[in-house]
Amino acid sequence: MSAFFEAHRTLLDQAVVATRTRGYWSAYPETASGKIYGETAKADGEAAFQAMLGKPFDIDQLGDKRVGREVSPYGITLGITYPALSVDRLLALSGAAGEAWGRASVEDRVGVCLEIIHCINRQSFLMANAVMHTTGQGFMMAFQAAGPNAQDRALEAVAYAYDEMKRVPGSANWSKPQGKSDPLVLDKVWRIVPRGVSLVIGCATFPTWNAYPAIFASLATGNTVLVKPHPGVILPLALTVRIAREAIKEAGFDPNVIMLAPDDAEAPITKELVTDPRVAIVDFTGSPVFGRWVREHAATELVFTEEAGINPIVIDSTSDFRGLCGNIAFSLTLYSGQMCTAPQNIFVPAGGIATDQGHKTFDEVAVGIGAAVDKLLSDPDRAMALLGAVQSEATLKRIEAARKLGSVVRDSAPVPVVGFAQARTASPLIVAVDAGDETAWGEERFGPIAFVIRMPSTTDAIALAAESASRKGAITAALYSTGEVVIDAAADAFAKAGVALSVNLTGGVYVNQSAAFSDFHVTGANPAGNACLTDTAYVANRFRVATVRRQRPPQA
Amino acid sequence: MSAFFEAHRTLLDQAVVATRTRGYWSAYPETASGKIYGETAKADGEAAFQAMLGKPFDIDQLGDKRVGREVSPYGITLGITYPALSVDRLLALSGAAGEAWGRASVEDRVGVCLEIIHCINRQSFLMANAVMHTTGQGFMMAFQAAGPNAQDRALEAVAYAYDEMKRVPGSANWSKPQGKSDPLVLDKVWRIVPRGVSLVIGCATFPTWNAYPAIFASLATGNTVLVKPHPGVILPLALTVRIAREAIKEAGFDPNVIMLAPDDAEAPITKELVTDPRVAIVDFTGSPVFGRWVREHAATELVFTEEAGINPIVIDSTSDFRGLCGNIAFSLTLYSGQMCTAPQNIFVPAGGIATDQGHKTFDEVAVGIGAAVDKLLSDPDRAMALLGAVQSEATLKRIEAARKLGSVVRDSAPVPVVGFAQARTASPLIVAVDAGDETAWGEERFGPIAFVIRMPSTTDAIALAAESASRKGAITAALYSTGEVVIDAAADAFAKAGVALSVNLTGGVYVNQSAAFSDFHVTGANPAGNACLTDTAYVANRFRVATVRRQRPPQA
Repeated sequence: MSAFFEAHRTLLDQAVVATRTRGYWSAYPETASGKIYGETAKADGEAAFQAMLGKPFDIDQLGDKRVGREVSPYGITLGITYPALSVDRLLALSGAAGEAWGRASVEDRVGVCLEIIHCINRQSFLMANAVMHTTGQGFMMAFQAAGPNAQDRALEAVAYAYDEMKRVPGSANWSKPQGKSDPLVLDKVWRIVPRGVSLVIGCATFPTWNAYPAIFASLATGNTVLVKPHPGVILPLALTVRIAREAIKEAGFDPNVIMLAPDDAEAPITKELVTDPRVAIVDFTGSPVFGRWVREHAATELVFTEEAGINPIVIDSTSDFRGLCGNIAFSLTLYSGQMCTAPQNIFVPAGGIATDQGHKTFDEVAVGIGAAVDKLLSDPDRAMALLGAVQSEATLKRIEAARKLGSVVRDSAPVPVVGFAQARTASPLIVAVDAGDETAWGEERFGPIAFVIRMPSTTDAIALAAESASRKGAITAALYSTGEVVIDAAADAFAKAGVALSVNLTGGVYVNQSAAFSDFHVTGANPAGNACLTDTAYVANRFRVATVRRQRPPQA
Repeated sequence: MSAFFEAHRTLLDQAVVATRTRGYWSAYPETASGKIYGETAKADGEAAFQAMLGKPFDIDQLGDKRVGREVSPYGITLGITYPALSVDRLLALSGAAGEAWGRASVEDRVGVCLEIIHCINRQSFLMANAVMHTTGQGFMMAFQAAGPNAQDRALEAVAYAYDEMKRVPGSANWSKPQGKSDPLVLDKVWRIVPRGVSLVIGCATFPTWNAYPAIFASLATGNTVLVKPHPGVILPLALTVRIAREAIKEAGFDPNVIMLAPDDAEAPITKELVTDPRVAIVDFTGSPVFGRWVREHAATELVFTEEAGINPIVIDSTSDFRGLCGNIAFSLTLYSGQMCTAPQNIFVPAGGIATDQGHKTFDEVAVGIGAAVDKLLSDPDRAMALLGAVQSEATLKRIEAARKLGSVVRDSAPVPVVGFAQARTASPLIVAVDAGDETAWGEERFGPIAFVIRMPSTTDAIALAAESASRKGAITAALYSTGEVVIDAAADAFAKAGVALSVNLTGGVYVNQSAAFSDFHVTGANPAGNACLTDTAYVANRFRVATVRRQRPPQA
């Protein structure tokens, strides 16, 4: 049994238990503290990042050419280039590396995976800089979400994969009674057989958090992995692959068990990879348009997607109006609404709602949320940290277009970032519309864009919110209500629509947060994605079981 | 908790353990004994079957018209008609029945499933007659394979589904420490959400054994089921649905939770069902041609298929030549080779093999197997019982065509069946060909058709057998060898090709037999099918998990 497995076994056992009990549990501390990560870790991480700029990325991987034109949403040009290979060579090298990896024991592979995650954890500050300057996330969010939180998601996938593989016994003696005759006896042996080459297509906003479950579920189950980053957000996954290759090599395997497959936006290789029959598994995070193309055109049937949706909030009543406004404002502000879990549509009865501050009209609710955003952004440091920068220029164009879709409750504006004069920023836009303005709110408008939607009643609001989730997809939903009957009705409606529901969040937990080992991220039951990250279904089909059954030779 | 669940709970717990230990275990006795099933059970079953002939099938299910033109392969016309509905009405009724079924507790649903299987078991003799006179199976095989063995497969699916659903806790308290501040606390509740309407498409040869895993996996996980039988083999699934509806009704649910969806060969409804977006799950057993169509055209992504393949045997050497010949002969003869697990291609080195009877030439091996078939069929009663009848006229045409594909080692011939002068029968055809005659052996030729293929060496035989399995599909493979190195090489090759391998079967276990709770039937890793019946992946995606997380109100 591998030394890596033994070294991390206690953590693994805890992780497996956590997937079943689903209370709070975390393996990797999200506090960016020198006491945990080393007193010089923050400075070392930033220095290491700075040292990479303008140079070829140092990775032990073959390349026919170099690609990479990353520009930070904070304005600096990264100037880092990465080795690139043809699809044919990538698949050939990955396939060759899979021979020994697929034959390795479950413990050997899982041990290597755990070691990789451990090594990634040690580089969390470097990763934070890499993620900040590719996705635009604020530094602290980049540290937490792309670092320890993503590492927890990786461990969760390994725990599920390990648990599932160990449910298949290695061997059994099968002895079937035959009345007075001797029993029929077979010795049976089972082995885990991987699918083959696994393609993981990363996204531009959460390159590690969204890709790690797929990468580690596939690696643990014996598949080799081609990591195809978004052409504008390569560095975080390049770092991941580099660290992984080192651990894989140290364990005595061909490092091509995992390979970076970068490309340029001008010469994309994703479609060629997806349609190649040598790719056995595809994991995709990205837009619904390309997600649909991937599902329809992939050569393999085994496609896991997280696409996007229109996440609703229904406001019926509250015993903490201030907390409600503050909580929603935070959700709209965090990373400028660029989370797949961020709310877009806030359904409010036209007649207003009952609150601890008395009756509030529809307009007062809308204005209350807008004012809470203003308050949150009134401190420039906090504004900068919370909003981060806007990853894509296209998001600014969407904000511009959304202004015209209704009555602007709170306008979006750039927010200065100290030290980065060229940063691309935008605070939340809040637009009031009617239920019938479905051309406005009925489409995903990625970025800091929210609609407050005037509804005839709470009942209509729940019905329309759930229906829009079933049709267009949604990952999260939130409800504010003091009525148990309303809460029960919403629980039923959103369960049927396949959306995770958060009720009466007014404190320090936000609807956009999804905790590893407790929250099932995406249900796979509406168009926001066809899979959950992570559940059993996410891992169980990444491997198959091969049987050898053997008649026992007659006793001598 | 339901009375049904309590009544069958001990059996369920044993079944769950059996799926994990995978030694011999069975819940339903396969001995067709009056001591087990009641002294009059055999006569009662036959009488009940006879009483059904020429009449409308008695089932509490709506119909706009009646369909059914079943003719027994033994020559009698069944003359039973079944109520049929339009696809639209079937889906509307099934969907409506799903509301309460999907909300029921795991225990309630699983209890009903266990009760259904129990009631089916009590009707095993009636089922044997129904299966014999639709599929052509001999009576004893029809009793065992379509009765208790199929019931075991049903229980296995329920056990997997139950175990998987129970891995999701019903609730948890999530409490995240916040240093010196109060922790963040959420109460979380999870519920199982079914996919919706599940379509199960049955086949003509093993209507119950192949459909039960799908039917019961879908029912247990909260889906409603439309059972679409092969138009020529309706009765066994009609009986199943009738029994199921009675138990479902007794438990207080709408019996339309399961519905028979029969059609005529002249007006088939399968394609309309498969392409309807209201169908959430499709399970298919049948030909690769239609299976491919189903996979490519289904509206849902969730498609489970068992198609077909070309199952190989590789003969390298043996310490029991007589046992080898007898065992293979039995496998070729049983149900006239109409099992999806029956071998088709027997790869033998051109230079012959070493045996306990000295060296045997290629021709001696082929002739030895042919002679063993003759011996097996020399007793007319045994011949009749083993061979059964040929389900489809098309199979006789395939035999006729196959005669011309090589050198006939043993010819096929009709075999008289006492009491059924019009029975459609055929004994095994064995044809010797060269490795290069791939147009002969390289296609599935369903029925009592086998090829003995002349190979340069055992190494080539293993390689070609495994390669043909990867390309054309295979569910089973067998190897005869006294050499551990050869056995290891075959184990590797067939594992990679996704085929279950049986080694040195010379006694009373045959390569075509697949035991519930021990053998994984189909791997899902080659074109013989995209799923395993049953493993975790077969059940885990039939339901999803919905979350409600709720901020705890501040303490009063």
